[in-house]
Amino acid sequence: MQPQTVALATPFGSRAAQALLGVQERICRALAQADGQDFRGDAWERAEGGGGLSRVLSGGGVFEKAAVLHSAIRGAGLPPVVLREHPQLAPDSPYFATGVSLICHPRNPYVPTVHFNVRYFEAGEVFWFGGGMDLTPYYPFREDCIHFHRTLKAGCDRHDPRHYAQFKPWCDRYFHIQHRAEQRGIGGIFFNYLKDDRERGLDFILDLGATFLEAYLPIVERRRGLAHGQRERDFLLYRRGRYVEFNLIYDQGTLFGLQSGGRIESILASLPPEVAWRYDWRPEPGSPEDGLAEFLVPQDWASLTA
Amino acid sequence: MQPQTVALATPFGSRAAQALLGVQERICRALAQADGQDFRGDAWERAEGGGGLSRVLSGGGVFEKAAVLHSAIRGAGLPPVVLREHPQLAPDSPYFATGVSLICHPRNPYVPTVHFNVRYFEAGEVFWFGGGMDLTPYYPFREDCIHFHRTLKAGCDRHDPRHYAQFKPWCDRYFHIQHRAEQRGIGGIFFNYLKDDRERGLDFILDLGATFLEAYLPIVERRRGLAHGQRERDFLLYRRGRYVEFNLIYDQGTLFGLQSGGRIESILASLPPEVAWRYDWRPEPGSPEDGLAEFLVPQDWASLTA
Repeated sequence: MQPQTVALATPFGSRAAQALLGVQERICRALAQADGQDFRGDAWERAEGGGGLSRVLSGGGVFEKAAVLHSAIRGAGLPPVVLREHPQLAPDSPYFATGVSLICHPRNPYVPTVHFNVRYFEAGEVFWFGGGMDLTPYYPFREDCIHFHRTLKAGCDRHDPRHYAQFKPWCDRYFHIQHRAEQRGIGGIFFNYLKDDRERGLDFILDLGATFLEAYLPIVERRRGLAHGQRERDFLLYRRGRYVEFNLIYDQGTLFGLQSGGRIESILASLPPEVAWRYDWRPEPGSPEDGLAEFLVPQDWASLTA
Repeated sequence: MQPQTVALATPFGSRAAQALLGVQERICRALAQADGQDFRGDAWERAEGGGGLSRVLSGGGVFEKAAVLHSAIRGAGLPPVVLREHPQLAPDSPYFATGVSLICHPRNPYVPTVHFNVRYFEAGEVFWFGGGMDLTPYYPFREDCIHFHRTLKAGCDRHDPRHYAQFKPWCDRYFHIQHRAEQRGIGGIFFNYLKDDRERGLDFILDLGATFLEAYLPIVERRRGLAHGQRERDFLLYRRGRYVEFNLIYDQGTLFGLQSGGRIESILASLPPEVAWRYDWRPEPGSPEDGLAEFLVPQDWASLTA
């Protein structure tokens, strides 16, 4: 007879989950330090096996909401979103997935929203890494876009000089809001189904945690003190609507979470604290709000000069 | 040679579209009268044929947003959401769809949000009617729920005494937020693929426009003046998040709109003007906010007594 308790993961999978807890911890410490307020942690378990630690900072000085989520879950029965990409896997395959995902919704409209995610997935003999990060400014600064992309490129180059050239356009394709014919932001990197050597893959995704902090925190420091009023706040709330539309309609991570029966409050922790939709609103031509559009055209930020 | 301009619809389809414009007009007139502010209209056209008239009232005294949308569109290539239900139809079949859909997001948290929709669809020899309406209260009153459902039942009974018994539970099944294991509101009626006699079907959906006004306006009048503060406003914004989740993740009408390439600002006019998500928030046990849950359990409102 099989015992009721089966191993959550391979030994490598368990090690990856543990190392990713460290990534979560380092990121939370750095964000809490920037904000002045700390994260609240909620550990949760999943009936089918595994669980997560959701760390959320709400109503901070810098971050209206920041959510840094760790999970390590076992499931039997692959979610449709995974099966579509791996028709060779039996639908009832047991799998293990672990990752850290993060979103920061800043209070100041001059500070961009950021998203970061790294993950490891294994099902039988098949395994892969995925992840990425992308920046969504409201009132963008050219030098911030360049800094963000250059830092990502350097972080990729340390591991494989081909990564950035592949993952940057992948990000532009992924964070496309089809029904608006619009990009979500200025992009970054995105990758999935990276079937590299296990150790090299893990090194890469762990190191991306450090890259994230180098890429984002300097922008937060530069912009957090900029004065703004109701007009900028309104535009922030309006643009956050695009974020909601993308996450609920297209995002594969959200879909995976909903399909795999994860903890709803964690999966939807990515949603902004306050949002506004304005029917058929368009920025005044030539206004700062109108200026955002040209930043949303994919471009080779890492090669540009400020 | 075929002329570039093909008929938008069968003569019956054109007549249905025209009659539905009348439904839109009567509803807008009644809502504008209740509000004191008028609707703004935007006519739009679709490259593939047809178009619509979107009438939206923003920032009114009673309605923070009310959108009453008419459309009559021709398409070639059935949207996946229709093909799934009609595997006998060729994917590239030309079709015609016309309908009115409506949503009211009231300002006062004691006034429920309401949704109404009726539609006619034809593709070759196949045609059907669909529609429904449902109520989403925040601080519900038992007598309002009973009034709403009794009015709907009477509106159905005038046409077919079997309708309400079939369409009421259909509504409960449809407006279920699966990932929250929660109903969107107290339901109402929902139906689709009603392949009744053409004339009888059209009579039914046109009459539902009148039923809607009888069902909703008395509730608006009774609750619009109730005093409320920031606490009730916060709860309204929070619960509106559920509406966004349902519409962007599950709603077949939204999906059809996005897949058939309709006008985005019209399709997403159903989204509330202001919304808030609060991480892992739960109402205090025994509070008025906590009291909502028991109303969200499907029940036979039309047979209950106040």
